[in-house]
Amino acid sequence: MMLVETLSVFPELFDPYLGASIMGRAQRAGVFRHKAYDLRDWTHDRHRTVDDAPFGGGQGMLMKPEPIFEAVRDIASREALRPHVVFFSPCGRRFDQSVAARLSKMERILFVCGRYEGMDERVYELADETLSLGDFVLTGGELPALVVIDAMVRLLPGALGDEMSAQDESFSDGLLEYAQYTRPADFEGRRVPEVLLSGDHARIAAWRRQSAVERTALWRPDLLEGVALTEAEQEAARRVVCEDQAGREQS
Amino acid sequence: MMLVETLSVFPELFDPYLGASIMGRAQRAGVFRHKAYDLRDWTHDRHRTVDDAPFGGGQGMLMKPEPIFEAVRDIASREALRPHVVFFSPCGRRFDQSVAARLSKMERILFVCGRYEGMDERVYELADETLSLGDFVLTGGELPALVVIDAMVRLLPGALGDEMSAQDESFSDGLLEYAQYTRPADFEGRRVPEVLLSGDHARIAAWRRQSAVERTALWRPDLLEGVALTEAEQEAARRVVCEDQAGREQS
Repeated sequence: MMLVETLSVFPELFDPYLGASIMGRAQRAGVFRHKAYDLRDWTHDRHRTVDDAPFGGGQGMLMKPEPIFEAVRDIASREALRPHVVFFSPCGRRFDQSVAARLSKMERILFVCGRYEGMDERVYELADETLSLGDFVLTGGELPALVVIDAMVRLLPGALGDEMSAQDESFSDGLLEYAQYTRPADFEGRRVPEVLLSGDHARIAAWRRQSAVERTALWRPDLLEGVALTEAEQEAARRVVCEDQAGREQS
Repeated sequence: MMLVETLSVFPELFDPYLGASIMGRAQRAGVFRHKAYDLRDWTHDRHRTVDDAPFGGGQGMLMKPEPIFEAVRDIASREALRPHVVFFSPCGRRFDQSVAARLSKMERILFVCGRYEGMDERVYELADETLSLGDFVLTGGELPALVVIDAMVRLLPGALGDEMSAQDESFSDGLLEYAQYTRPADFEGRRVPEVLLSGDHARIAAWRRQSAVERTALWRPDLLEGVALTEAEQEAARRVVCEDQAGREQS
């Protein structure tokens, strides 16, 4: 069972997500276990201070190095197996599905979540890995940790239960997922593509592959570089992009 | 005051984050107001069904179109001002700080959060905008919505309070943020750069600019394309990249 630990000044933000819904069921099923640590437990002053003003001036407060060093060292020593320690920073490696798959192999992983304006630069030497969720700024590292935990845990055997699957989804074959439809076949005049109602599995598979290629060509052409396409698929990709351009020029 | 609405089958996942900590304080200060809607309130069967099997076969369940159409139309009509409706999909536009800044100008915004394997394709016509957090798959749209809300709300006047600031941070000038340090000046032999202790504001500003340029050159060279650098800064950027390469070749 994977042990997922979080270190934060707001330890109470994790359980409402990781204890509920799919993540809660995965914990109860023994797929993973989450433990939230409060960084303030490693402070030694009456105010349990974790932040301080930046050297050199400037607005805002930085997280101090001592509680973070002490906490990470102490938490790491509590089990025989050292945790894989993950920090978040805009300087980090961009999180993606391949990182999620790699992290899902870890037996013990500790996420260190910042708050305030940032952290003292020296703490990053504690990181085995520094991740970035993208080019945006959040109030803290708790949401990024929850995102990474969710993406990672859902890949673990048993996490999604019987009715769901991590197969056949966006990025699993390098493409965006094909367009999907469920009942009714006609919703206020919006009809499901006929082929999907045909019962012809070969035609359905071909339609889905083409849908995935076209959607990727349209919205994420950068992904196509890593995918081997047939000549017919390359032609379909070119066509959908040209049609989209023509449509936009008319409108 | 910005009205932020969420539509989801797990409406209870939002308040523990948006009612606590910085987001909770921002709501109490009247910076924004969040309202969570339960998609099942727009179903009409005894089991409150929101999902169904995909046409054409395959594993997993899709979210049905009817409850989503009905809910979005009903919610939109409850106020004089129509909401800006945001969906999440791997096909969507990559969320970044410029999107956060644009969304923070909205008066009313509704996030529609999927679950299960995906949504019936027809629902996306309800979207004013479809966003993607990155190339990874999550169990649902609740975390992406929280991420976007957090990034957007913290840019609103009064959201961060007096002790914090959305100035002077990564991406605000196109660069990653400079390295930051707080006390102690010497932590177990790891010393803060002397210039930051000098009190010389011009030298500190120059050091910080160089730190931001070097870090961006090292970790996010793609960002430098949009930034006007002096010749000395371009030289510093080249040097830090070469030194890093040399260091890695030795190790």
